[in-house]
Amino acid sequence: MKLYGYWRSSASYRVRIALNLKQIPYETIPVHLLKAGGEQKTEAYQQLNPARLVPTLVTDDGEHLNQSLAIIEYLDAIAPEPRLIPEDPLTAARVRTLALDMSADLQPITNLRILQYLTGELNQPDETKLRWIQHWVAQAFQAFEQRLGQTAGRYCVGDQVTLADICLVPQVYNAQRFGIDLAPYPRIQQIVAALNVLPAFVDAKPEAQIDANS
Amino acid sequence: MKLYGYWRSSASYRVRIALNLKQIPYETIPVHLLKAGGEQKTEAYQQLNPARLVPTLVTDDGEHLNQSLAIIEYLDAIAPEPRLIPEDPLTAARVRTLALDMSADLQPITNLRILQYLTGELNQPDETKLRWIQHWVAQAFQAFEQRLGQTAGRYCVGDQVTLADICLVPQVYNAQRFGIDLAPYPRIQQIVAALNVLPAFVDAKPEAQIDANS
Repeated sequence: MKLYGYWRSSASYRVRIALNLKQIPYETIPVHLLKAGGEQKTEAYQQLNPARLVPTLVTDDGEHLNQSLAIIEYLDAIAPEPRLIPEDPLTAARVRTLALDMSADLQPITNLRILQYLTGELNQPDETKLRWIQHWVAQAFQAFEQRLGQTAGRYCVGDQVTLADICLVPQVYNAQRFGIDLAPYPRIQQIVAALNVLPAFVDAKPEAQIDANS
Repeated sequence: MKLYGYWRSSASYRVRIALNLKQIPYETIPVHLLKAGGEQKTEAYQQLNPARLVPTLVTDDGEHLNQSLAIIEYLDAIAPEPRLIPEDPLTAARVRTLALDMSADLQPITNLRILQYLTGELNQPDETKLRWIQHWVAQAFQAFEQRLGQTAGRYCVGDQVTLADICLVPQVYNAQRFGIDLAPYPRIQQIVAALNVLPAFVDAKPEAQIDANS
């Protein structure tokens, strides 16, 4: 398989973790989100993803898949070991809720294109951008921390790594980049510490990618 | 089952469509998102959803489920007829990609709390708010329209109603509220016209809810 992504993209990071957990080998094809106005906006990349976002996974059959959660659900169906979305419908709902808290309600409102719009089109200073990030991260992490009180074991939902963990780690990585204090979120901190020593998570880190710091 | 929601909330609208398609009877419990600063922010509602967002589905077993896509996946598992996420992994990926285009990449960045932050904390005029909505709707609808070229039949993916259709209809409803011209999106227009005559979609419309215009 081939993964078009960017080292610091949260959505690419999620798919890397999932591929690693399932031990599916893949080739990385970097798409630089900043260089020359953003390689994701080129005509060539739009053929792979009309939404001009990363990642895109190209399967062995040459199919192009977009949207990290759709990709991970696909991987979970074709390579079910280890299972990232539990079979029990209620437990699966708990996992998907946590995953969407991070991937639908936090990441899209604090990602690159939104921040660029705030400082570009809306002409806001960097300080406003930082307050924006802090505000939405705090809202999302507070809710997530509270949910963990009902669901967590060693990881977000019980003692198995799930899609919820895969979605949490990149958002914590981002929060730390922006200097957000994680002290109010002890459960998140503990779970992320346990996840970040697992080889699949270590190998998926932005700094471990071939395009890191490019 | 009980559905805590708001007549104009896109995420509530999605769950209503899914419940109707599966002919699962439910009781509506309105949560007014504007009155008295927003009923979703009360202590009582936070017990149901720490993220202070609608909807919440309370199952027959008294479980509280949040996040519309997690809820619909749950309903699809416990009541598989009609199937909203196809069994074939690749077709399921196409469906989830379209669903996430609307529910993760468009709705969260144009929803009430974001618009309130823009006009409140950032003190932006209504005109900027409208430009914000138009900008992100256009990006999302352009990509969606292009994807439909590969996937559409009578509906978004082939000739069966899927999760993709459930996520599209509320976003088109919203776009029309804000006066967005749909002429550049003929496939979207045609599919939504076909969906909006189905009883499950008619009964789920905001104006048909007990809290409509409240």
